Amino acid sequence: MLKKESRIGIIGLGLLGGSYAQGLSEAGYQVSGIDINADAVKKALERGWIVKGGEDPSLIQDCDIVISALYPDAFVEWVKKNQDHFKSGCILSDVTGIKRKVMRSLKEVLRKDVEYIAVHPMAGRESKGIDHADASQFAAANYIIVTDNDNTKEAIDTARQIGEALRFAKISVLDSERHDRIIGFVSQLCHVIAISLMNISDDPSLVDYTGDSFRDLTRIADINEDLWPELFIGNKDFLIEEIDSLIEEMESMKELIDAEDVEALKKKMILATVRRRRFNKKKEII
Amino acid sequence: MLKKESRIGIIGLGLLGGSYAQGLSEAGYQVSGIDINADAVKKALERGWIVKGGEDPSLIQDCDIVISALYPDAFVEWVKKNQDHFKSGCILSDVTGIKRKVMRSLKEVLRKDVEYIAVHPMAGRESKGIDHADASQFAAANYIIVTDNDNTKEAIDTARQIGEALRFAKISVLDSERHDRIIGFVSQLCHVIAISLMNISDDPSLVDYTGDSFRDLTRIADINEDLWPELFIGNKDFLIEEIDSLIEEMESMKELIDAEDVEALKKKMILATVRRRRFNKKKEII
Repeated sequence: MLKKESRIGIIGLGLLGGSYAQGLSEAGYQVSGIDINADAVKKALERGWIVKGGEDPSLIQDCDIVISALYPDAFVEWVKKNQDHFKSGCILSDVTGIKRKVMRSLKEVLRKDVEYIAVHPMAGRESKGIDHADASQFAAANYIIVTDNDNTKEAIDTARQIGEALRFAKISVLDSERHDRIIGFVSQLCHVIAISLMNISDDPSLVDYTGDSFRDLTRIADINEDLWPELFIGNKDFLIEEIDSLIEEMESMKELIDAEDVEALKKKMILATVRRRRFNKKKEII
Repeated sequence: MLKKESRIGIIGLGLLGGSYAQGLSEAGYQVSGIDINADAVKKALERGWIVKGGEDPSLIQDCDIVISALYPDAFVEWVKKNQDHFKSGCILSDVTGIKRKVMRSLKEVLRKDVEYIAVHPMAGRESKGIDHADASQFAAANYIIVTDNDNTKEAIDTARQIGEALRFAKISVLDSERHDRIIGFVSQLCHVIAISLMNISDDPSLVDYTGDSFRDLTRIADINEDLWPELFIGNKDFLIEEIDSLIEEMESMKELIDAEDVEALKKKMILATVRRRRFNKKKEII
């Protein structure tokens, strides 16, 4: 469990790791930070977000809770290489956006006296790096704890307490299959669409003739190319199903347009409108 | 030309027609309004947006400029039925979102002593009706004058003056082919995507797990089903080309994801990022 005196280690002081360090230190916890980027460590120390930091993995040896804010593959590699430094009985968590693959990989390699509890904070921005870190972003974001059958109630509760300390808007618990399927739809498919929209036209004058629609649909096309190929590939079975499903629906719309079937198009628009309004109402609650 | 004493008639006092009446009356012009909805006329009169109004088409017989704010087919039908009431030499304009079809239809039927100049104000909302009218929306919107070879300089200048009186952010002139092609991409394709995204999943719990991406991409799925089938069908050649082009690009993304081709995915993301950032910069200017 998270206690007032718990020591928390954060691996990777970028946009999310930096925001975690800020939020947890402001909530009163002692945070240690590891990053190979000396500048990120320096800034985190200066801002009082961590009490000690550096690139030495042994910095987390007294931590009760270790949270990796690395990309998925890098996280697994880091654990393989450095897990001797984990305190026995500590809880290991993360922020990665895909879960089945990470959970499978860690199950094979992680020390048996350390429990991994997966978390996906649905936050982040187009920008990266500690200079864009801002713990206040969590107040509008969802925090998903992703479990498998081996997780203890204590680890799940600890993950929940961290989400509460960071003041996330909503905390939920999902299994990894359901998490990855939902993310494949609400996040990854949307990024594939935005990238594709930007890449099918190189007409620079479009900027002069666009309303808000195109800007809204392509905002997330400004994307971190170091992270996202890994996320797409690590969830490719579900993501490909979602891409196929959208293509099939667009083909169906296309046929109705070509056949000038006004009534069928109306029905599709009414269904879309009704469903979309549910998201408006919910937004007010969140 | 638009003069201080010009009389302007607006046909249809809905969201856009009402906003036009508001903006033009506030700019000092005498506006007459025609609508079969007595409540819309009453509200426009009460607010001082029109000096006279009703459902009688003869109300526009003293107007130097008549602007239709009807949907495309209804606009053409209205002209066929009521053009005897146009003052000889008047300028006829509109607000429809597709142009080739409307221009073709009017060329066949319009009186030779009246000149039609097509305009597409890229404004509007999810809502409809005069209660949502608001001329201040134009300050952030593009106004496109769409010409063919027959248009006189005087008509083009008049359309421009109306756009200026309504304080649109940017006024441009395009031919109808180019207009309809651009709109097929930046507006209509985006609406097809948003509708399709909402329609491929009926999982109500998605609301709990979505970030901003999905909300941004589906905002325009809350759509006016009385208008949009007509817009899609009236531009179907170009729209279908755009749908095909997006599907082709998504198929290509899918193949790269399946082949786990990180480098090719990175290239696509970098291109998308570079192009998208142009839209950020431009937005500041607009």
